Amino acid sequence: MTAVQGYTLADVHALCERYNNWGRWGDDDQIGTLNHVEPHMITAAGALAKQGKVISCALPYDQNGPQNGWGGRVNPLYFMLQDGGDAAIGAQDHMAGLRYADDAVYMPLQSGTQWDALSHVFYEGKMYNGYGLENVSSTGAKRNGIHLTAEKVVGRGVLLDIPRHRGVDWLEPGDGIGSEELAACAERQGVRVGKGDFVLVRTGAMAAVRAKGTWGDYSAGDAPGLNLDSTHWVCENEIAGLATDTWGMEVRPNEITEIFQPLHVVLLVNVGLMVGEIFDLEKLADDCAGDGVYEFLFVAGPLPFTGAVGSPLNPLAIK
Amino acid sequence: MTAVQGYTLADVHALCERYNNWGRWGDDDQIGTLNHVEPHMITAAGALAKQGKVISCALPYDQNGPQNGWGGRVNPLYFMLQDGGDAAIGAQDHMAGLRYADDAVYMPLQSGTQWDALSHVFYEGKMYNGYGLENVSSTGAKRNGIHLTAEKVVGRGVLLDIPRHRGVDWLEPGDGIGSEELAACAERQGVRVGKGDFVLVRTGAMAAVRAKGTWGDYSAGDAPGLNLDSTHWVCENEIAGLATDTWGMEVRPNEITEIFQPLHVVLLVNVGLMVGEIFDLEKLADDCAGDGVYEFLFVAGPLPFTGAVGSPLNPLAIK
Amino acid sequence: MTAVQGYTLADVHALCERYNNWGRWGDDDQIGTLNHVEPHMITAAGALAKQGKVISCALPYDQNGPQNGWGGRVNPLYFMLQDGGDAAIGAQDHMAGLRYADDAVYMPLQSGTQWDALSHVFYEGKMYNGYGLENVSSTGAKRNGIHLTAEKVVGRGVLLDIPRHRGVDWLEPGDGIGSEELAACAERQGVRVGKGDFVLVRTGAMAAVRAKGTWGDYSAGDAPGLNLDSTHWVCENEIAGLATDTWGMEVRPNEITEIFQPLHVVLLVNVGLMVGEIFDLEKLADDCAGDGVYEFLFVAGPLPFTGAVGSPLNPLAIK
Amino acid sequence: MTAVQGYTLADVHALCERYNNWGRWGDDDQIGTLNHVEPHMITAAGALAKQGKVISCALPYDQNGPQNGWGGRVNPLYFMLQDGGDAAIGAQDHMAGLRYADDAVYMPLQSGTQWDALSHVFYEGKMYNGYGLENVSSTGAKRNGIHLTAEKVVGRGVLLDIPRHRGVDWLEPGDGIGSEELAACAERQGVRVGKGDFVLVRTGAMAAVRAKGTWGDYSAGDAPGLNLDSTHWVCENEIAGLATDTWGMEVRPNEITEIFQPLHVVLLVNVGLMVGEIFDLEKLADDCAGDGVYEFLFVAGPLPFTGAVGSPLNPLAIK
Repeated sequence: MTAVQGYTLADVHALCERYNNWGRWGDDDQIGTLNHVEPHMITAAGALAKQGKVISCALPYDQNGPQNGWGGRVNPLYFMLQDGGDAAIGAQDHMAGLRYADDAVYMPLQSGTQWDALSHVFYEGKMYNGYGLENVSSTGAKRNGIHLTAEKVVGRGVLLDIPRHRGVDWLEPGDGIGSEELAACAERQGVRVGKGDFVLVRTGAMAAVRAKGTWGDYSAGDAPGLNLDSTHWVCENEIAGLATDTWGMEVRPNEITEIFQPLHVVLLVNVGLMVGEIFDLEKLADDCAGDGVYEFLFVAGPLPFTGAVGSPLNPLAIK
Repeated sequence: MTAVQGYTLADVHALCERYNNWGRWGDDDQIGTLNHVEPHMITAAGALAKQGKVISCALPYDQNGPQNGWGGRVNPLYFMLQDGGDAAIGAQDHMAGLRYADDAVYMPLQSGTQWDALSHVFYEGKMYNGYGLENVSSTGAKRNGIHLTAEKVVGRGVLLDIPRHRGVDWLEPGDGIGSEELAACAERQGVRVGKGDFVLVRTGAMAAVRAKGTWGDYSAGDAPGLNLDSTHWVCENEIAGLATDTWGMEVRPNEITEIFQPLHVVLLVNVGLMVGEIFDLEKLADDCAGDGVYEFLFVAGPLPFTGAVGSPLNPLAIK
Repeated sequence: MTAVQGYTLADVHALCERYNNWGRWGDDDQIGTLNHVEPHMITAAGALAKQGKVISCALPYDQNGPQNGWGGRVNPLYFMLQDGGDAAIGAQDHMAGLRYADDAVYMPLQSGTQWDALSHVFYEGKMYNGYGLENVSSTGAKRNGIHLTAEKVVGRGVLLDIPRHRGVDWLEPGDGIGSEELAACAERQGVRVGKGDFVLVRTGAMAAVRAKGTWGDYSAGDAPGLNLDSTHWVCENEIAGLATDTWGMEVRPNEITEIFQPLHVVLLVNVGLMVGEIFDLEKLADDCAGDGVYEFLFVAGPLPFTGAVGSPLNPLAIK
Repeated sequence: MTAVQGYTLADVHALCERYNNWGRWGDDDQIGTLNHVEPHMITAAGALAKQGKVISCALPYDQNGPQNGWGGRVNPLYFMLQDGGDAAIGAQDHMAGLRYADDAVYMPLQSGTQWDALSHVFYEGKMYNGYGLENVSSTGAKRNGIHLTAEKVVGRGVLLDIPRHRGVDWLEPGDGIGSEELAACAERQGVRVGKGDFVLVRTGAMAAVRAKGTWGDYSAGDAPGLNLDSTHWVCENEIAGLATDTWGMEVRPNEITEIFQPLHVVLLVNVGLMVGEIFDLEKLADDCAGDGVYEFLFVAGPLPFTGAVGSPLNPLAIK
């Protein structure tokens, strides 16, 4: 089903060059393919809220998340600054009448459902639009920060449910998804994909996790995902953003060894594409399978952490 | 302009009783007035995205925020787990080709633009729907957690711009906003408010902060805001949620001394109303003043932190 | 070797009562058995530094520690606020000449080598000296805080190496150590234990971890340790403090089921004994076996976190 | 009293060269002047514990500390993972009998009383012993980490109380302390300083803070401190470590403008001297003034955070 691609480093470089968008929206652009979204698309997307149904694609943020500590990524740590126990033992008796609870969190910004900012990945010292890695220091990103997209991730969303298209429960690690299959899946689902759309590609990885009762090596392990060939479909359709239900969006083991996560280099660095990961697409997929409607209003702005290279969010599909 | 209310503790208790919604949506309800939102309202709200314009009401999350440490609330602390400097000095040379940045944050969940969960406030040992404070321990809230609202904060939004209604730049600390003024402001703006709406009430507090160049005592100090009398308008209109541009939504100094933040006790504990704070309404207000359109699709789901008593978010007004 | 104790809840209560020190050093005492240390003992201990040899009993604080998330206890998370990479990419060019690195940590205070404060454990609503649990709220301990001991943990230290005494590499989970064995071990080692001493009891648990190459269930799992019977030896010798190389000091599974960690209730709550855990005693034990000297100057003050219920530290044995 | 030094950049470079210790203890040395401490010195220091008196030089670690956010340095944030309130509301009822409190902290490692590691400062791309800044990445220091000194900071301590020597309550910002004054102060105090000693230099900055009731610009502002001329005394006496009661050890404004904190470049980078800051020397100074004894056993090992560039600690002076 997933053709062996036989990609070489030179092929990847050619893909990067062919679909490179540096300068396309100006030398100072910092949002890449989010520029594809035009106001009329947002208006049209608003009309997709036909049933008044809202489905979140966010995995709950808690200690049951997928992280295993790789690269310092742990699941969110949650703290109570004040709680019901304080009220019970009189620790709030200096306040008149009202009692309260207050909380806090420590979390890697890419520990759960997340957008990668265009400042998340570098190749040969550069990130999207040619900005150098010297723009991302210990105090954050001076270019391509996630906060710049806070008002930009609204439009038409489309779910492509690859396991249902293939007739399987989920894709297995190593299963790649290419341009032809993306097109075929859309066609089978009876949905058009076009300029400015946000495309959610389901691999079923979370269904597999739930069936097995463990995250296993979901994080940083082998995984199904988009392969390098998918670049053609992604770029020729001029989609605005792309998200999957896996840790790293692209198929693993990677198709070449010279670059870790080569599709990130193509899509984030060269194309300037907004990429989402660890989206929980199970509920949405069940719903789409039920009503046959694979398009929706998609509202998925990140939290505007100034200069961040990623962000948690609550992506909503509204049908 | 703001009539002296002369509220007594007994009056507040009477308000609580009059508008109490415990049991209204079942003994196990945990989302309160969000139940007012019906699917057709969401569909209708989708049609408000007429211009394809998206405006965020989120204050950036960074060290320039309003917090001063009150109750442990500090501004977000931001960390890089990996950054461009690591790539520069070879600390990522174990990875093939790709280089990356990764980040993390520590933040009180109510340190910036935020929803209060219905588990945020107790009165006489109870929170909304009669759940006891023993449900909120050091590991979070077993009832009324913010995650339960992740798919519930979508609908029609209305901005009420009180300073423009009054003809001032901003309201001053101590300026209360009551039911009559809320109704008059809506009428002057030519906008209807009704069941299931999300109402954003601008006091201009952030305009004042920016004009003065300092947060001053924005957090926990005296402030303009809704007064106890506003309860009538809020509840009789059956709005789903309410947010303001201040630290604590209600007027301060408080109208009675026997309860700190008495309107919180009325609205959060008794009414079960979703309350938002530290919303940045300046850009939205300018836009509404410009086009005369004060209604919009409002999409403002919290991050689903399991069992949290509040959440940061990126509230979007889509016109 | 470890006699079955056959302890009942009533027996534990009797132990608590027999050795209870509440009021012994005044109704407002907050340091318990640290009161045993008298100035002349410190002077005498100073004379034990005969070889000028310093051995740390601290496990390094890092991600390789024993924690598994139990009760929110994770291994320390370490952050760089500034680092060499920042210097390399010019992020410090606003500073003249000097470049620097700066770091930060998040850590549960009992995630590694640690002292338990006397505010760490309650029984029937009370901690040491009868202070109620209402003294320990979300902002810390108003009584029995660890900071009160900052100058109190200096004196004579004695290592009791139980595995060498038994002729094994390490004790196994479930192996309890009682009064008779503690006395016999001291005698065989040729060392006297007395009033005001700090006693380090080695079970070899860390040797076992290293031999096996994994922490396994070192944290919160079954473990060797002191049993309830050890109370007699501990209290009759009037030692000032006690530390072991295990997660929880006492033998697990616990000897009774009615109280989790019953020896903590006896020693921390009733006796007021300073208890240390996760001490790394391997290097010290090797050294003592080598020179036959099991006594030393022991300097092990906690960090003075105000109102904390425990603290990391760098305990030093100076011979 | 403090002679104008008239230092130029070339003078500083000359100082660096004159007292440079790179290679002195081998090309792979990572502890610098701590090598001056020899076993017999530790034994002799043990004999200084004549009165059995222990004095901590640690400022309490809490929200009342000196930090103002400079460079991300905030005062410690303290969290309860479990507390008495949880016990009170039944949140620990799954445990048999025992109830407990547990806590955690987030803190910059140099937010309070601290040792600078030799990896804390770079000059011209190098730290002590010629190691390049590429050794200090977002995961910590591969060379000159603080953990390497865990067993090395024990020896003879000497307090030099400059304000008492000058007959003032405290030194003012800008007041520098040079070699001649250090020697004169020691002589007046009747104390010898020599090889392997740890010298604590009091400026009275904390007395000034307490008298004024505010930290003011204690952190990163102007301050009294050692001047560049002090290098001669420090190095010719071959002391092992040096600590002061100020934020940054050296006099500020700095004596030259071409290097921020030039004495750090001399002492940390070139000499390899262990430098401590924010030591609270008030209690110790009062005690020394009282008994006329300015020497003591000094035990001040850092916490062994692996690869850290600094560490909090509880430095103890034992007399």
